[in-house]
Amino acid sequence: MFIEQTIGVAPKATKYDGRRRNLQLALQHVYREGLTTRAEISRLTGLTRATVSDLVAELVTGGLVKEVGPGTSSGGKPPTLLELDPTGRQIAAIDLSRRPFRGALVDLQGGIPHRITGRRGSRRGASALREVFALAEALVERSSAPLLGIGIGTPGIVDLDGSVAEAANLDWHGVQLAREIAERFDLPVEVANDAHAAALAEFGSRPVVNLALVKVGIGIGAGIVVNGELYRGDRPAAGEIGHIRVVEGGARCTCGNTGCLETVASVPNIIRRAVSLAGIDASAESLPWRASELEATVGGDALGEAIATAGRHLGAVLAHLVAILDVHRIAIAFELEGADQPFLEAVGSALAARILPSLASLVEVSVATHGPDLVLAGAAALVLREQLGVVWQ
Amino acid sequence: MFIEQTIGVAPKATKYDGRRRNLQLALQHVYREGLTTRAEISRLTGLTRATVSDLVAELVTGGLVKEVGPGTSSGGKPPTLLELDPTGRQIAAIDLSRRPFRGALVDLQGGIPHRITGRRGSRRGASALREVFALAEALVERSSAPLLGIGIGTPGIVDLDGSVAEAANLDWHGVQLAREIAERFDLPVEVANDAHAAALAEFGSRPVVNLALVKVGIGIGAGIVVNGELYRGDRPAAGEIGHIRVVEGGARCTCGNTGCLETVASVPNIIRRAVSLAGIDASAESLPWRASELEATVGGDALGEAIATAGRHLGAVLAHLVAILDVHRIAIAFELEGADQPFLEAVGSALAARILPSLASLVEVSVATHGPDLVLAGAAALVLREQLGVVWQ
Repeated sequence: MFIEQTIGVAPKATKYDGRRRNLQLALQHVYREGLTTRAEISRLTGLTRATVSDLVAELVTGGLVKEVGPGTSSGGKPPTLLELDPTGRQIAAIDLSRRPFRGALVDLQGGIPHRITGRRGSRRGASALREVFALAEALVERSSAPLLGIGIGTPGIVDLDGSVAEAANLDWHGVQLAREIAERFDLPVEVANDAHAAALAEFGSRPVVNLALVKVGIGIGAGIVVNGELYRGDRPAAGEIGHIRVVEGGARCTCGNTGCLETVASVPNIIRRAVSLAGIDASAESLPWRASELEATVGGDALGEAIATAGRHLGAVLAHLVAILDVHRIAIAFELEGADQPFLEAVGSALAARILPSLASLVEVSVATHGPDLVLAGAAALVLREQLGVVWQ
Repeated sequence: MFIEQTIGVAPKATKYDGRRRNLQLALQHVYREGLTTRAEISRLTGLTRATVSDLVAELVTGGLVKEVGPGTSSGGKPPTLLELDPTGRQIAAIDLSRRPFRGALVDLQGGIPHRITGRRGSRRGASALREVFALAEALVERSSAPLLGIGIGTPGIVDLDGSVAEAANLDWHGVQLAREIAERFDLPVEVANDAHAAALAEFGSRPVVNLALVKVGIGIGAGIVVNGELYRGDRPAAGEIGHIRVVEGGARCTCGNTGCLETVASVPNIIRRAVSLAGIDASAESLPWRASELEATVGGDALGEAIATAGRHLGAVLAHLVAILDVHRIAIAFELEGADQPFLEAVGSALAARILPSLASLVEVSVATHGPDLVLAGAAALVLREQLGVVWQ
C-alpha cells in the first residue's frame, strides 16, 4: 500500500465519486471566493458551464449556496452572484478537553448560534460518556438547520475509527465513542484528539502548509499539520509531548513516570508551583485559571516565575519540534486566561536559544486563534472536512 | 493551494500524464511482484487487457521489462511471464556526505556494478564542486546501460529545485547544483539532503508508513518519512537535529552556537572525547572511524564511555522525535564502524526512559540497511522515484 501512496496514484474514480468530488470542488470555490458566479467557477475549476450549472443547482436546492442577485455584466445578461449560505447546515461540536465539557452548534462559517455547558465536576468513565450523550442530545434538539454531523474533540489517543483508545483523564480505555454516538443519533460522527482538532481549526485560519498547534491546559498536547494535512502518527498519537521527560528526577506525573513536561508546564501545575512559591495556604485546585485573580492571591512574582519556568520547559521541547519538523509557525493555546504574553515570551526565548539562529529568525510563535472555542471550532472542522471537503478559513 | 491539498483534489490529468501514470502503474506492479503476467497486471491495476499489452510492449521495447518464457496455463495458451530487467537502466549516484566523496552506478534493483571514490582530502567551495563534476563525468563515461539520471545526496539544506542553500561543511551557499550538473550532462538530476536521501532508501526496505532515519557521521541529521512520503519541511530542512542545544554551557559548535547535539555525538567529537578521556597524546582527526582500531589506541573504557555519552544525548533528542511524530521505527546509520551495538543500546535506553512506557514498548531502534552505501542507494532512489515512480524495496 505504501508504494501507491508514495507516488500518489489514486484508484479509478467511480461516477458517483466523480460527482461528489465535483460538488466539493464547486463548493470549495464558493467557500473560498465569498462571492462568485457560475462562469467564474467554470473558469477556475475547469468544469464545463453545463456541469457547473447542474452542480450549483444541487447546491442551491440543498441549501448550501444561495443566489444573491445580479453581478456586473461584461456585455450581455448580468451573471447571478452566488455565495455560501452559512446557515444552510449546522454542526454539533463537543469539547471534552475542558471541565465542564462544552458543546455548541456551529454554522458553516464558524458562527456559533447556540452553546451549552455540561454539568460541573469532573466526570470520568461511564459518567463522562453519559454526559457526552446528554450534550449531543441537547445540541441535536436545539439545531435550527439540518445537521451535517457531530464532531468531538477529546483528550487521549483516538483511533482512526473514532474510538478512544486511551484517555487517562477521562478514565476511558477503548471506548467506541464515534460508533456509540452515531448509532444513537443516526448522524455522521467524527472524533479526534483535542489538540489534533484544534490544529485543524488553526490551519483553516492561516495560509501555511505546515504548522504546529500546542494546547496547554489540564494536559499538554500538540496537533501537527504537515503538507497541508493533519498528521496523526502510528498509533495515532502524534504530538503527545506532555509526557516527554524534561526534568531528571522530577515530580511524579499522572502517567506514572517522573519529570514529564506536564509536571512543570500544565496549567494546574503552574498554579500549584505559584502557590508553593508564594508560600501561602491555598488549594491550587480551587483557584481560577485567570491571571488577574491568581495574581491577587499569590502575587505577581510567584505567578510570573511559575509561568516563566513553564514557558522555558515548553520552549526547550518546541526547539526539538521546530528542528525536527522544520515547521516555522507555532500557535499556542494557553488556557491560563490573561497570561499569553509572558508565557509566549518565555517559550519563544527558550526556543530561540536552542536552535540555529538562522532557523530561529524564521520561527513565529503566536497565540492560537478561536480563543476558548478552539476545540469546538476544530471538532466542527472535522465534520466539515469529512462531509463537504472544505476547511475553515 | 493548501485547501486543494487537504482534500486531495488533483488537477485534471492530460492524456500524456494519463499514459505516463499508467506506464508507472504497470511498472510498479512488475517491480513489486518480481514475476508476473499481462493478465495479472490487468487484474490488479484495473486497466484493460489491450491497454496493458500496449504498455508492456513499450516497457519491453524500452528495456525496462523482459519476457522470461511461458507461465502456467489455466487451460488455454500459457501466459508469458514478465519481470523487471534490472540492468535495463543505470543511475549515477553520488554521496557528498563522506570524505572522500563517493560515486556509483546503480542498477534498477539497487545492484552496484561500478564504484568510484573521489580524491582524498577535504574539498570545499569551488574545489568540492569541481570534484562533483569529475565524479559525475567518470560515472557517465563508465555507464553500461542508458542512464535514468544523476542522483546526489549532500550535507546541508537543499531547496526543492536541487540547489544547495547552505552546506557549512562544504562551504556552499546557494550553489545551483542540480542545474549545473543537468546542463553539463543533459540528464535528469535529483539532489537532496544526505539524510533525506538515506531515509528514502531505508523506507524502500521496510513495509511501514512512517519512519525516521538518523545519520551520525561528520554531522547528525535525520530523514523523516510520514504517510509514506519523504517529509521536507518549510525551508526545507526537516530533521536538522544536529544543532539542537543539548548541553547548557557546552562546547562551541561549528555552527557558532554552543552545546549542540553534534558537539557531543558526531563521530569526530566522539573520537575527540575518547582521546581526551584516555588522556593520550593523539590527534583525533588522524584516527580511523573503526571501533577495533580506536580501541587499540584509546582503550575500551574511554571509547565505550564516549560512545555511551553520545548515545544518551541522541536518545534524549529522539525521545522528542518519537513523542512528537509518534513514529515507531527509527533506523540509525552510525558511521563509526563496528560500534552499532553499544551505540544503539545507549540510544534505546535513553529514549525509552524519557517517554511513556506504553509508547516505549512500541518503538524499535535498529541499524539502517544498506551499510556505507546508504546515501548512494538514497541518491539513486531519488532518481528512480522521479523518473519511474517506483521506490526501492
